[in-house]
Order: sequence, then structure tokens, then C-alpha cells
Amino acid sequence: MKLVIVGGVAGGASAAARARRLDETAQIVLLERGPDISFANCGLPYHIGGEITDRSKLLVTTPERLRERFRIDVRTRSNVIKIDRKAKTVRVHDLETGREYDEAYDKLILSPGAAPIRPNLPGTDLPGIYTLRNLEDLDRIMDRLRANVDRAVVIGAGYIGLEVTENLVKRGIETSLVELADQVMPPLDPEMTAPIVETLIRHGVSLHLSESAESFETVEGTGPNGVGVKLKSGLMVAADLVLIGVGVRPDTALAAEAGLELNPRGGIRVNQHMVTSDPDILAVGDAVEVIDFVTGQPSQIPLAGPANRQGRIAADVVFGRMSRYRGTQGTSIVRVFDKCAGCTGASEKLLKRLGRPYLTAVVHPLNHAGYFPGAETMTLKITYEPETGKLLGAQAVGGAGVDKRIDVLAMAIQAGMTVFDLEEAELAYAPQFGSAKDPVNMVGFVAAGRLRGEHPQISLDQLEAELNATHTAPFLLDVRTPAEFSLGSIPGAVNIPIDVLRDRLAEVPADHPIVAYCQVGIRGLLATRILNQHGRTAVNLSGGYTSYAQRRTVRDAIKRPI
Amino acid sequence: MKLVIVGGVAGGASAAARARRLDETAQIVLLERGPDISFANCGLPYHIGGEITDRSKLLVTTPERLRERFRIDVRTRSNVIKIDRKAKTVRVHDLETGREYDEAYDKLILSPGAAPIRPNLPGTDLPGIYTLRNLEDLDRIMDRLRANVDRAVVIGAGYIGLEVTENLVKRGIETSLVELADQVMPPLDPEMTAPIVETLIRHGVSLHLSESAESFETVEGTGPNGVGVKLKSGLMVAADLVLIGVGVRPDTALAAEAGLELNPRGGIRVNQHMVTSDPDILAVGDAVEVIDFVTGQPSQIPLAGPANRQGRIAADVVFGRMSRYRGTQGTSIVRVFDKCAGCTGASEKLLKRLGRPYLTAVVHPLNHAGYFPGAETMTLKITYEPETGKLLGAQAVGGAGVDKRIDVLAMAIQAGMTVFDLEEAELAYAPQFGSAKDPVNMVGFVAAGRLRGEHPQISLDQLEAELNATHTAPFLLDVRTPAEFSLGSIPGAVNIPIDVLRDRLAEVPADHPIVAYCQVGIRGLLATRILNQHGRTAVNLSGGYTSYAQRRTVRDAIKRPI
Ligand SMILES: Cc1cc2nc3c(=O)[nH]c(=O)nc-3n(C[C@H](O)[C@H](O)[C@H](O)COP(=O)(O)OP(=O)(O)OC[C@H]3O[C@@H](n4cnc5c(N)ncnc54)[C@H](O)[C@@H]3O)c2cc1C
Ligand SMILES: Cc1cc2nc3c(=O)[nH]c(=O)nc-3n(C[C@H](O)[C@H](O)[C@H](O)COP(=O)(O)OP(=O)(O)OC[C@H]3O[C@@H](n4cnc5c(N)ncnc54)[C@H](O)[C@@H]3O)c2cc1C
Ligand SMILES: CC(C)(COP(=O)(O)OP(=O)(O)OC[C@H]1O[C@@H](n2cnc3c(N)ncnc32)[C@H](O)[C@@H]1OP(=O)(O)O)[C@@H](O)C(=O)NCCC(=O)NCCS
Ligand SMILES: CC(C)(COP(=O)(O)OP(=O)(O)OC[C@H]1O[C@@H](n2cnc3c(N)ncnc32)[C@H](O)[C@@H]1OP(=O)(O)O)[C@@H](O)C(=O)NCCC(=O)NCCS
Repeated sequence: MKLVIVGGVAGGASAAARARRLDETAQIVLLERGPDISFANCGLPYHIGGEITDRSKLLVTTPERLRERFRIDVRTRSNVIKIDRKAKTVRVHDLETGREYDEAYDKLILSPGAAPIRPNLPGTDLPGIYTLRNLEDLDRIMDRLRANVDRAVVIGAGYIGLEVTENLVKRGIETSLVELADQVMPPLDPEMTAPIVETLIRHGVSLHLSESAESFETVEGTGPNGVGVKLKSGLMVAADLVLIGVGVRPDTALAAEAGLELNPRGGIRVNQHMVTSDPDILAVGDAVEVIDFVTGQPSQIPLAGPANRQGRIAADVVFGRMSRYRGTQGTSIVRVFDKCAGCTGASEKLLKRLGRPYLTAVVHPLNHAGYFPGAETMTLKITYEPETGKLLGAQAVGGAGVDKRIDVLAMAIQAGMTVFDLEEAELAYAPQFGSAKDPVNMVGFVAAGRLRGEHPQISLDQLEAELNATHTAPFLLDVRTPAEFSLGSIPGAVNIPIDVLRDRLAEVPADHPIVAYCQVGIRGLLATRILNQHGRTAVNLSGGYTSYAQRRTVRDAIKRPI
Repeated sequence: MKLVIVGGVAGGASAAARARRLDETAQIVLLERGPDISFANCGLPYHIGGEITDRSKLLVTTPERLRERFRIDVRTRSNVIKIDRKAKTVRVHDLETGREYDEAYDKLILSPGAAPIRPNLPGTDLPGIYTLRNLEDLDRIMDRLRANVDRAVVIGAGYIGLEVTENLVKRGIETSLVELADQVMPPLDPEMTAPIVETLIRHGVSLHLSESAESFETVEGTGPNGVGVKLKSGLMVAADLVLIGVGVRPDTALAAEAGLELNPRGGIRVNQHMVTSDPDILAVGDAVEVIDFVTGQPSQIPLAGPANRQGRIAADVVFGRMSRYRGTQGTSIVRVFDKCAGCTGASEKLLKRLGRPYLTAVVHPLNHAGYFPGAETMTLKITYEPETGKLLGAQAVGGAGVDKRIDVLAMAIQAGMTVFDLEEAELAYAPQFGSAKDPVNMVGFVAAGRLRGEHPQISLDQLEAELNATHTAPFLLDVRTPAEFSLGSIPGAVNIPIDVLRDRLAEVPADHPIVAYCQVGIRGLLATRILNQHGRTAVNLSGGYTSYAQRRTVRDAIKRPI
């Protein structure tokens, strides 16, 4: 068996290592265009800010190691420029010597990854404008930073854009972050991004939402190589460095040219064994189309975990095992200064776009027992099926403990668990780590209570719709303390604190729908229970005033003057 | 409906709050023997060391709050001394006034908890000897600490004993920890406790394993109220304070006297709806017998999460909902200085004791990407069914990230997932939080590889047995570097580094079983693969030299002179 692998990082190197473990005698050739293999793409942003000081740490393994330990024929600076499917050869361009040669294969695994999108705008090739994919990109950015960079513009507020922003700020660089969408972190529902927006602003980032770059130009007063970024609103932002992080596109020209089946976005189509339309060619990683595990939709989800596991599966399949990839949940996370945000499965906005039936539940619990020092609030939101309670997605934002709840809920999605299962989840509790009723239980209680009919809820979206249509406007009841109420409330709300609600029931209309709310929802639930058992028709505002304020934070950020 | 609840903390208060939410009109009486309700049992140890400085933080809610907000008739210092099941009344002794009275119920929920076991040893009632269950116990301990305490003895190295030990040390008190078993933290397999043992020793704790207290006596030179603790070995340890934490016993004299069905250990027998042998009496929390979710065995598992959830279920059942408790997995965790250890489901030693078929897998991964600063090693061990791969249990020990993996695996157990599911778990990866191949995936790879036959393994137990029976002694092959080898190896091992193994195959016997090992198991796996594909019969030592050394650490601690 001669196995040739194109691309030597997450998917490719994992496939190569697994292939060798499976077969001592196979000939394994790993072809990588760049000078490095097995590097830590995901660590690149942290060398910019200095959190990873030593560049060499970013090399997870070396060609020498793969040669010695795994007897893999590693060839770096070797660009594969053509696949001859009939002859079963690839054409390799040795970038060192300029030589071109053919390499035969019995099986071919493609793991070429995805390339940063560089929008075709005027001036996009000016010096000072960068994208970040590999160590060479990083070196170029570091070179520029060693010259004098006082101001930077990051275009795109997805994971990479946010990570680079944080790291530029940590270097003391005045940074503007420009995002086309009306929110940062597009995979999340907008209101969930509020803590990220707040921390960005707190750390001095100029945030431009619903805004985009129109052109780049050389302007006065931006240093020798300065760039002016002209925004759609007309604003011109001057910078000594521009980082474009507006997403990636499968690096699949090679596959396209070879006539492999691709989707319209350039993703290589594979079956569940990672085999392409050519039975001797497999493909993995950012370059392939995957099935969204929750929605069943074909998608493009560039993540390192899936790439690693797909590489392992592809090697299995090459050596006759019928391992199968189950689809991608999109489990991901990002740290932004002191906050972090993660998600798995389907968001509310995705389900809305797909027209799927869903419900949501939101809680704002502490990450661990409140009586133990250091507890931090998180917001945890899930989506689930109205009929069955099956969990469809989860998002969390906050500080410590966010990653844990995302992973726990990722497992629950993988297992097809329901919100009733979340109620009964038995998680590890000591005061440093959780609560006797963990956030996961809490969100399960809230969701399951809704399905059982004991906890009627209204979402922020619905409330807004009802408030806008004045003839259906509900009676808004704020059951927090007067002190809380005075610090901000939903316009039109009447304040009757929960502890006196039973005594002041007469003030609550009997013939009008009521929306009760408190700070997070717990007192709102009790109010709803009290009212409905006293002949009123009340629902609890999902997520309470906190969710309302979070949404406002995000909206204000859009309008925010710079 | 008149609901009477006995016990006002985790299970009782949760039942009361849920009951009110379910029914606005019910009369709810909460009877608590002590002066406080809803206190944070689990936080008590941290007031000793000062991490929770403010005692009032330990009161999660107050009688006033439950009265005002939930209209619950809370009566503290009210000891229930008798249940008249015929008359459906309880007899209450008001400890404030001395008065006794009967209180009628329609339904009764018992949540009396469990009391610390105080072994009946000579001198056990001397002043200076404490147990820790509630705030009154805590206050007594704090009083003593305010006098001069230089030396302390903690008896019992379970969760509470370890937590108190840590906190005494943090106060600068010279502390001895005495444990009857040959390991700390009895729920874990012994070798898993090594990092805890190491940190105890590093923090100056005198650890006495396989040792017990025989008697207590007043001795010279221990201060005015000093106690001498006489150990079984004959040793006398002097202390100004002794804390006994050797386990708890259901506080069920009341239930016993009322003729409710109990198990031999005093646990109240309940059905899955938490109903006792009397259909009008329910019981929850530490006082009840639960079904071990994994083994199906009746057990006694005192944990706050189960108590809280059982309380909620009992309230449901009282108000006609058929909520059901699924059993307890025993998910728990403890922090000991800079380390923490947790577990869920069945340990190896439990499965061995029950005679159940099982396999284990052990890995020693980093909690997050190694290239990102601050990564810490953890040890993660699972047990699983040999036939199906179904996960039976998990244990983890290390620093950050241990709680996350325990919770993820607790979900997997709850869902009935297999090690093949762990291979495909899609967990959140960014370098601060995990790895592209998470520890959960890794342990899944190792376990599944064994079931697929591609990764033959030998456990430490088996290796020891084989090494002891000289005629079967395997060829022990250490494939680490000479530098690693020189720092310690398994006696009798031959060192051939993995990178030259293929060249030195001739040195490995073809007619003799081989056990390969490296530091954690990854190179051992590759060695096994190489050897078996070259006609040898090799297995990989599960957990590698690290597990071997961990076991030795624990054994050395037993013999350790004080
Ligand atoms: C800055 C950054 C941060 C990231 N952070 C995270 C994170 O926190 N979490 C996460 O899950 N994911 C993260 N990712 C994404 C993650 O790195 C990718 O999902 C993963 O690396 C994809 O693996 P792959 O093998 O498909 O592609 P890659 O790892 O990109 O490897 C593809 C390789 O193929 C080579 N190649 C392409 N075409 C050819 C050819 N024709 N001939 C020879 N070689 C070729 C390329 O040079 C490249 O080195 C991040 C990515 C970047 C860039
Ligand atoms: C120091 C300590 C640390 C702990 N740490 C943890 C941890 O980190 N994680 C974890 O999961 N668990 C921990 N636990 C265990 C946890 O606190 C218990 O599992 C939980 O509190 C059990 O709840 P319960 O309602 O059954 O009993 P309890 O919370 O003990 O409440 C029972 C109450 O009933 C009262 N009572 C008993 N009999 C009568 C009567 N006849 N009349 C009136 N009142 C009565 C008692 O006074 C008591 O207040 C810890 C416990 C202690 C003591
Ligand atoms: C304080 C105590 C009485 C609270 O009981 P509780 O009211 O049931 O619990 P919580 O305050 O957490 O509230 C949970 C309720 O709020 C709801 N809830 C939680 N977050 C919500 C949100 N954001 N929106 C709407 N509802 C929410 C839940 O659905 C649940 O209601 P349900 O049971 O009717 O479904 C009880 O937990 C207790 O005594 N704890 C301390 C003792 C103890 O546990 N000790 C051992 C550990 S140290
Ligand atoms: C470095 C790299 C080549 C390693 O690939 P690998 O050898 O498959 O992965 P690992 O070193 O983690 O080893 C995993 C193997 O060790 C085994 N293993 C892990 N821990 C073990 C233990 N304690 N005992 C025994 N075996 C163990 C696993 O079972 C697995 O073997 P299998 O696949 O045959 O079942 C590849 O992961 C890589 O290139 N990574 C960097 C690039 C990257 O991922 N970038 C994106 C993220 S920044």
C-alpha cells in the first residue's frame, strides 16, 4: 500500500500517524506546501500578544520526528499541483528546487485545509494588510509589529478576529474591530454576545458593528507603511497594521481541477467514510463538506477537533476499517480577555432560518457555589425540540466554567438526550466547581418546566413583538426589589416585589395577559406560579431583565459612536 | 394539602420551595432541629481555613426568606421525635421552649440527612474531639481554633477529612491525617490517589495510611485541653484538636422507630418516586438508600446534588406528578491544595469486588494544549464493559480541567454511551480549554483500540501478577529515551528507544511475551504495533511508567515513617 497525503497539519499529520500505527509496511508520503508540518494553527494569535513567547512551541511535531518515529516520508515545501486520477499520481512542485515530479499513490488523502478569504477590495494588496493561517503569515505580522505599530484594524469579529484583537490590545496597540454583521461571533445568538461586547469595550477596542471595509489606501500620518481603511459609513480609520479575518474558504482548487465532486462553496463532498467521489481519494478537515449533526444540513465547519478525528478515520478506511464520521456539531469556544463564549449544536437564529420548530431556555447562574469566593455569572442558553424535549443546541458565555457546560451539553447532544435528562444530570459538586443544582440542571429545569406546562415563558423576541403591537401589549410586571427596579427596568413595567405580590394581587389585572420578570427568571417563575394559581394569565420573561439588558448592550454597541 | 417536611437543608428546603411553586394553597411546614436551615454543609470546611471568611455566607437562605417569599411555616430548633403513622401526626419537641406538640400531615417528607460516625473508642468524648456536620459544629471548632491550636489530627481521609486537613494546614497547623484504608479517598482506585498523596506530603501533612485511632487520652504537653491520639501501631500523636471524619450514618432513628422499612445500614428504603414503605411518607437525601445507577446495587451515597434533586422529585410526587429518580452515579469531586480528584460511576475495585466483567483504560494527558502556557497533567481512568464498550465509570486526578472531564463522562454514563462514542466526542477546543484530541477522546481511543484488538494492553495488576510468577515473567521493554530510563524504570526492563526499535528488533525475543511501556503509553502503543507486525507478541502497559510510579507513590506512603 502506498498512501500519499496532501497537507501536513491537523488532518494530514493525524492521518499519517494513525496510518503508520495501523500498518508498519505501508509506504506513506506526506506532502506539505509550507515549510512546517503539524503546527498549532490555533496558537498563532497568542504569539502576537506574547502569551506564547516561544515561537518553536507552535511546532507540535517536526518532520524529523515523523520520519524517525513513524517512518513517514515527509516532504515540506512540496506543493501538489495536479492529481491524475487515471494514472493515480500527483504532480508535486518542489518549491525548494523548482523541480516538478509525479508521485504515484494507491490511496490519496487530501487535507489541504481552508484559506483565509481576502475580499477583493481596492487596495487590498497594500503592504500592512495581513491574514493569518500559518507560521509564515505569523512571521510577517511579527516583523511588522517589531517596526512601530500604534494602531491596528481587525476586519471580522469571528473567532480569529477576536483572538487577534485581544492579542493586539495586549501589546498596547489601539485596535479597531470592524464587523459586517450586527454582532460579534456570528455562530452565537446576538444577545449572548453581550459580555464579549462589554469586555471588548472595557479593554478599549473600538467596535464597529454593521460596518465593513470598502477600500484600503495609503494615507498621511499613518507611518511609512500605514494604511487607511475606508469604511462603508464613510469613516476612515488609520492603521499601521490591518488583519483580515472574515472567514475561510476550502483550499480545493486542486480537487476541483481533478474533477472531484465539490459543493457550491468549494467543499469536497465525502461520504461518511471520508471517501470523495473517487473511491481511491479521501478528504478530511476544513476542505470537506460535513453533515451538521443536529440539523442534518450539509455545512462547512472548520475546526481542529473534527479535522483530527476525520484524519484518523480516513487512515482507518484506507486500511480496510469501516470507521465512520458522524457529522459535526460545531462545538467551539473562544476566550476574549476575561470572558469566554462557546457553543455546540444549533443556535436559535439557525433554527429560525431553517424554519425548524424549537424552544429556548436561558439561565444566568453562577459557575460555582455563590458562597465560595470567585464565583462568576454565566449565561447559558439552549435550544430544544418542542415535541420531544430533545436538545438541539447550547451556547454559554461568561468566565470560568463556560467550557465545562458546553462540553457537557455537547455530550448530551451527541447522545440525543432531552431536557428531562438535563434535569437529572449528576455532575460533580464541590463548592469550587459547581452547585448542587448545576447550571446544566437549571437550564434543564427551566426547559422541562415549560414543556410540562408548569413554567409558561415568553422569549425576548415574542415580548418585543407584543410590545410593538400596542393592542396586544401585556401588563409588564417587575417583581424585583425597588432598589433593583430603580437601576433600570423594561419601559412600562410596574414594580411589585415578589415578597409582597400575594398581598398586592389586586393591583394585577385579572383580564389581561401578564408578563412577569425579575433579574434572571427565578422570582419571575414564582410570580408566574402565584398569578396563574390566582386566576391570572401570566408568563415569565425568559432570561429576565438580564437577557433584556444583554440584548440592549448588543444593540447599543451597533449604534455606538466611535 | 398539608405537607410537613422534616429537615430543612439540602433535600428538605428544596422540597419545600418546589412544593410552594407547585401549589400556592398547600400548607407547608418545615421542621428543623438545628437553629439554621439551608446552610452550605459543603462550605463548612472552608471557613476553618479562612477561604470563606464571612460565616454568614454559609447561610444560603434564611427562615425569613422562606416565610416571606414561599409562605412556608419554617420552625427551627424543632426536633421531630416521633411519627404517628396511624394518626398521621409528628410529635415536635420545641427546643426553645421545651414544649412538645403534635403536628398533623397529609404527606410527610423526611430529609433528616446523615450524622457523622463517632467511633466508640476510649476517650472519644474528651474535649478537643470534633465532628463536622453543621454550623454549630463549625462554631465549636472555630472557638477551639481561636484558643491556641498548633497541632491537629484528622481521622479519616475521605472528602471531608481531606478538606478539613487542607484548611487546618492553611491556618499553619501541623496536621496528621490518619486513615484506616491503604489509600486516601476510598471511592478512587488506589493508584489514582498518588497526586493527592504527593500534595499532602508536599504541604507537610503527616500521612498515616493503614492506620487507625485506638483511643484518646489527655497527655502532658498538649496544652490545657490537648488530646493524645493513640494509634493502632502504638504511636501516640499529640494534638490540640482532633477531627473525626470517618463517614456518616443515616440519621434515621425517627424513621426506624416509626417502623418504616430500612436497610441494614439504616438507610430508608424508597421506591423510584421517593416514597417509603408508608405511601404518605416520602424520604430523600443522605437518609435514603439509592440504587447505584451503574451497578444496580442498593447503596448509600451522601451527596448534595442527589439530595437536592430528590427533594424536588418528592415535592412533585406529593402533588401528583410521577417524577422519578433514576439512581445515583456517585459523581463527586474534591480539591486538595493544588490538586483535585473526582469520580463518577464504578471504580475498578468496586467492579472487581462485585465480580463484574470490566476493562480499564488510563491516559495521562494535559488539560489543554501543551503549547499554551499553564497546561497541567491529569490522569484519567475509565472502566467499561468488555463486550459492548459501555462506559461504567471514570476517575480523574490532576489540576484544572479535571472537573470538566468528570462531568463530561458523567453525562456519557447517564446516556449509556460507549467508548466508541468517546472517540467521537466533539468537545470545545481552543488552546486554553482543551486539545484537538481531548483527554476524553484519548481515553476513548485507548479503550476502543483494545476492544478492536489493535491495541493489546496489560494492566498494572496483571503485570504485577506475571512478574511475581517468574515462569511467566514477560520481556519488559522500555521504549523511552535513555535519559528518561535513567531517571527510573521498572526493574528488569530493557531500554530500546522507540525511534530505533525497528533497527534493533533482533534484540527483542521472538518466542517470549513482551510488555512494552513508555512514560504514558503513546510510544508503548507504537512499539506494540511495530512488534506485533514483526511477529512478536507484545502488549502495552496501561498507563505506562507514570501509572507504575503512581502506584509506587501510594505504596510508599503506606510504609512512610512519620
Ligand atoms: C489562527 C487560527 C486559529 C484557530 N483556532 C482554532 C481553535 O481555537 N479551535 C479550533 O477548533 N480550530 C481553530 N482553528 C482551525 C483549525 O486550525 C483548523 O480547523 C484545522 O487546522 C484544519 O485542519 P486541516 O488539516 O483541514 O487543515 P490545515 O491544518 O490548515 O492544514 C492544511 C495544510 O495543507 C497544506 N496544503 C494545502 N494545499 C496543498 C497542496 N496542494 N499541496 C501541499 N500542501 C497543501 C497547507 O499548506 C496547510 O498547511 C484555527 C485556525 C487558525 C488559522
Ligand atoms: C462538611 C461537609 C462537606 C460536604 N461537602 C460536600 C460536597 O463538596 N459535595 C457534595 O455533594 N456533598 C457534600 N456534603 C454532603 C451534603 O452536604 C449532603 O449530601 C446533603 O446536605 C444531604 O442533604 P440532606 O437534606 O439529606 O441532609 P442535610 O443537608 O444534612 O439536612 C438534614 C437536616 O435534617 C435535620 N434533622 C435531622 N433529623 C431531624 C429531626 N428528627 N427533626 C428535625 N430536624 C431533623 C438536621 O438537623 C439537618 O439539618 C458535605 C457534607 C458535609 C457535612
Ligand atoms: C436555597 C434552596 C431552598 C433553594 O431551593 P429552590 O428554590 O428549589 O432552588 P433555586 O433557588 O436554585 O431555584 C430553582 C428553581 O428556579 C428555576 N430557575 C432557575 N433559573 C431560572 C431562570 N433563569 N429563569 C426561570 N427559572 C429559573 C428552576 O426551574 C427551579 O424551579 P423548578 O424547581 O420549579 O423548576 C435550596 O436549594 C437549599 O436549601 N440550598 C442550600 C442547602 C444545600 O443544598 N446544601 C448542600 C449543598 S452546600
Ligand atoms: C502531532 C500529530 C501528528 C499527532 O498525531 P497522533 O499520533 O495521531 O496523536 P497523539 O500523539 O495524540 O497520539 C494519539 C494516539 O496515542 C494513543 N494514546 C494516547 N494516550 C495513550 C496512552 N496513555 N496510552 C496508550 N495509548 C495512548 C491513542 O490511542 C492514539 O492512537 P490511535 O489513534 O492509534 O488509537 C497530530 O496530532 C498533529 O499534527 N497535531 C498538530 C496539528 C494540529 O492538530 N493543529 C490544529 C490544532 S492547533
